[in-house]
Amino acid sequence: MTPRQFRKPIEHRDPASPRGEPVSLEHQRGELEIADALKIIPLGGLEEVGRNMTVFEYKGDIVIVDVGLQFPEEDMPGIDYIIPNIEYLKGKEKQIQGIIITHGHLDHIGAVSHLAPKLGNPPIYATALSRGIILKRHDDFPSAGPLNIHVVQKTDSLTLGHFKVQFFHVNHNIPDSVGIALHTPEGLVVHTGDFKFDHSPIGDEPADLARIVQLCSEDGGVLALLSDSTNAEVPGYTISERQVQESLDEIIKQAEGRVIAATFGSLISRIQQLINIAEKYGRKLAIDGYSMRTNVEIARELGFLKVRKETIIPIGEAHRHSPEKMIIACTGAQGEGDAVLMRIAHREHKFIHIQKGDSVIFSSSVVPGNERSVSALKDILMYQGAKIFHSKLMDVHASGHAQVEDLKLMLNLVKPKHLIPIHGNHFMLRMHGEIAESVGMLQDHVLILTNGQAAIFKDGKAYLSKKRVPTNYVMVDGLGIGDVGSVVLRDRQVMAQDGIFVIISTIDTGTGKLKGNPDIISRGFVYLRESQQLLSDVRKRVRAIVEGSTAKEHTLNTVYLKDEIRNKMGQFLFSRTERRPMVIPVIIEV
Amino acid sequence: MTPRQFRKPIEHRDPASPRGEPVSLEHQRGELEIADALKIIPLGGLEEVGRNMTVFEYKGDIVIVDVGLQFPEEDMPGIDYIIPNIEYLKGKEKQIQGIIITHGHLDHIGAVSHLAPKLGNPPIYATALSRGIILKRHDDFPSAGPLNIHVVQKTDSLTLGHFKVQFFHVNHNIPDSVGIALHTPEGLVVHTGDFKFDHSPIGDEPADLARIVQLCSEDGGVLALLSDSTNAEVPGYTISERQVQESLDEIIKQAEGRVIAATFGSLISRIQQLINIAEKYGRKLAIDGYSMRTNVEIARELGFLKVRKETIIPIGEAHRHSPEKMIIACTGAQGEGDAVLMRIAHREHKFIHIQKGDSVIFSSSVVPGNERSVSALKDILMYQGAKIFHSKLMDVHASGHAQVEDLKLMLNLVKPKHLIPIHGNHFMLRMHGEIAESVGMLQDHVLILTNGQAAIFKDGKAYLSKKRVPTNYVMVDGLGIGDVGSVVLRDRQVMAQDGIFVIISTIDTGTGKLKGNPDIISRGFVYLRESQQLLSDVRKRVRAIVEGSTAKEHTLNTVYLKDEIRNKMGQFLFSRTERRPMVIPVIIEV
Repeated sequence: MTPRQFRKPIEHRDPASPRGEPVSLEHQRGELEIADALKIIPLGGLEEVGRNMTVFEYKGDIVIVDVGLQFPEEDMPGIDYIIPNIEYLKGKEKQIQGIIITHGHLDHIGAVSHLAPKLGNPPIYATALSRGIILKRHDDFPSAGPLNIHVVQKTDSLTLGHFKVQFFHVNHNIPDSVGIALHTPEGLVVHTGDFKFDHSPIGDEPADLARIVQLCSEDGGVLALLSDSTNAEVPGYTISERQVQESLDEIIKQAEGRVIAATFGSLISRIQQLINIAEKYGRKLAIDGYSMRTNVEIARELGFLKVRKETIIPIGEAHRHSPEKMIIACTGAQGEGDAVLMRIAHREHKFIHIQKGDSVIFSSSVVPGNERSVSALKDILMYQGAKIFHSKLMDVHASGHAQVEDLKLMLNLVKPKHLIPIHGNHFMLRMHGEIAESVGMLQDHVLILTNGQAAIFKDGKAYLSKKRVPTNYVMVDGLGIGDVGSVVLRDRQVMAQDGIFVIISTIDTGTGKLKGNPDIISRGFVYLRESQQLLSDVRKRVRAIVEGSTAKEHTLNTVYLKDEIRNKMGQFLFSRTERRPMVIPVIIEV
Repeated sequence: MTPRQFRKPIEHRDPASPRGEPVSLEHQRGELEIADALKIIPLGGLEEVGRNMTVFEYKGDIVIVDVGLQFPEEDMPGIDYIIPNIEYLKGKEKQIQGIIITHGHLDHIGAVSHLAPKLGNPPIYATALSRGIILKRHDDFPSAGPLNIHVVQKTDSLTLGHFKVQFFHVNHNIPDSVGIALHTPEGLVVHTGDFKFDHSPIGDEPADLARIVQLCSEDGGVLALLSDSTNAEVPGYTISERQVQESLDEIIKQAEGRVIAATFGSLISRIQQLINIAEKYGRKLAIDGYSMRTNVEIARELGFLKVRKETIIPIGEAHRHSPEKMIIACTGAQGEGDAVLMRIAHREHKFIHIQKGDSVIFSSSVVPGNERSVSALKDILMYQGAKIFHSKLMDVHASGHAQVEDLKLMLNLVKPKHLIPIHGNHFMLRMHGEIAESVGMLQDHVLILTNGQAAIFKDGKAYLSKKRVPTNYVMVDGLGIGDVGSVVLRDRQVMAQDGIFVIISTIDTGTGKLKGNPDIISRGFVYLRESQQLLSDVRKRVRAIVEGSTAKEHTLNTVYLKDEIRNKMGQFLFSRTERRPMVIPVIIEV
């Protein structure tokens, strides 16, 4: 048993400079200002999983790869998500030749609607499915104006200023994912996007190894590889989606009742697997959960799902089919409070309640931080008689990210001179660096960057910038972008811990006396009905403070008086409760 | 990339009855009221990890095993911890023959100081180290009065009313842990406590297999085994602490600088390993972190740590020794905000700052929910030049809980007629049940209980109660025990999400007009300095509402007026910000 007592402090933790102290970086071989060089500047994605956005710059021309969001950390209550900081690009809007999108996941496209307008609406290039998902999401931003977005084929070649861009197909757990070959005057740079190799994928082609080899042999080889580090700590190869399908097949074949398969809303290939199995065993498939329904619709329209017309039925019709003829695909495998599976478990779903004989498949990994929610959810489902299958017990999920051996394969295909590990925490990047060394790369040729730090290439040599461009968090909360800062967050945290205690004193300026009793507004501190004595003691003490102060001073010093009330009542409340609510004194003069 | 959008709802989730709906249980074979039977009632520990407390009752005599606490869930901001609900024992204080403690971890002893006084101070029986830890903790409860606590030897035999209690030594990651053989008129019941088997432990003896076999062969065999399910999903055997020591030895032998080993504050055997290695390589060991220092002191006093006098030095003297001569053992391996390792990483520690050449060992597993904090912490340490070792990379930690094969071994040693899996979520208990079936137990003889449900034994037969005794959460927050309920928690959650917005209108009852502008107190909602226009718009609207209402009504209807302000201003703020702060209207009449 182990405690989970404290949250992290709420400042944006810049790991290179925790709490503002200067900390030396290992590689400090150059300046951001080297002229006529190729600069690669990650604005996000190197100290976290998410917020991926990388700037490529040569002689004033800029190409951007991905514009993603990051989900908030635990110490950011109320924050919807975090988007990249584009301060570095301010004033450079006209230099931006294009934004290239690797795939349609939110950590790669989620900030497009916020930032593309601010970047002067540069052309965005995306494969068909990624484009569909971006446009669908953009519907939620009516005031942002239309996007300047173009479909690219994987065989296309774009010329964007000094850059030439080509694509290669990779596997990931969303179809139509690509890696990028970026031809620059300084040499060829390859960006993998998120990737894995799957030699027997479902609803997708295997990653195009031949094209990777062919592209990488151009321009005299690859100057630098930017490669996905998410699974750099996970040994072995990722399992194939074929194996996942076989596990799902086995479960569903043997299931005597309904099968409910919960997974990520964007996991189109999992839906394809369920379609294949449904059609094999004569079951219908109903899909529920906004993000999943939306993604399935887009994928279906664009031909990324192979499905007979009669297979997919609306969730509202599921009850018309006998349980052994139904599969339900839904969101909520992470125990999210409002997602479909949670509503089913709590018998709040309009159409689906758990019944004995149901099989529930958690067809996903558990995202760090969600373990307790998922455990509780499994329990609730089991209590109601469901059989539970999850990825610890069977291969009902495959990660979308290359593991150690896959990373080696990519390195051996690309044979880059330099590696810039991307997508992951710093220690994942380091692990990726060690993997590169294990396949023969020189330690010096592994460039571990921080967000905002530039890798600079000039005449075949690599430099790391000493300076870093701004990358601090830009938080989105409702309609506000970047307006919630540490003050607001800290207040939320304090109120979450011990509540708020507002003391309103109405003072007659003529007499210096309180008019009536002080009003007290308390929320999240104590249960008021059972705390009448405490409130009455507070009122008495506030009266004494006010009248003592006005008697002594002969005039009303509200600043002093507020401080007195805040300090003394804060101490008093702590002595009585050992809680520290936010105490806010209000003086109303009449 | 996967979202973590929603928190769970804050109600106490009774998995057997989510959101109040009645749900049928699988086993409903009897009533709690069967007379003269042996009843085993878990008050906690069966729907969570933590809050372990089990009641054994026979003809009015009661014996309790463990009185532990549970750490709060994510949706319980500000809560310190949760203790068992003892409503069932009210009025039965005189029947309690004793409380038996299996080991000194907080999830087994943490509620003793709160609850023993309320249970009429029954005698508590604990091994020497567990007793030492309970007494030390009890110092923090000066008003609770002294505990009636007794040391037991593992060879002791206690007669407690109808019960006879014997002990057997098990391994866990704290020394002096015991399992319990409880002889009852209905048969022998065995309770493992938390356990693992370690055939080559450090600073401890191997679990006493011979004694388990011998005890379990008495009374014609074991009627029921209550056994630890924490690792019922983890295949294989737990690794030996010897292996952990070898991994630590290897790291420390090769470390050119200082070694900082972070682990749980109660992990005494890990400290013994570090002592052994320190003495082997001529290093000094400094210990930091309140819980770790306290536990080491108690263990040392009681002879549970073998250490030369000169090996352990105060943390304040660590800088006097050259780095390659130092090991620092500290708390904070979970990324807890206030623990030692976090302070070291953020250069806030009084004596220890990370320097190049330091090796930091995360000698622990990562507790679910802490992954992101731990990742961030590793990054910060790495940036400052530390080498990082953790249990994914090397065997620097062993779990304290039996894995699948160990559980089979326990079942085969004890050969119980019935198994009651304890300690874990419901799905872990089920897994444990499946393990029992795999070694030949009849499915019918696996009793999966929920908290508060009784297993009843009479004439060799087992029944499960239909009724459940109360087990809902009792939350401790500061000095308050059980006073924070769903109202207070919900308020904390709402304020954490979008803050609070208090609108104070001072109304002249003579004229029905506002005196001056409404006062607004806003916290955690928007950054006030940049929201003057919004506040001004609110004030205008509030004035219109107040004066419209008083003009229309000719008299001040404060209830109506407050509702109007709350609803209209709530909507207005949402329309402007898409945030929903808690809006609190206050009317002051003068």
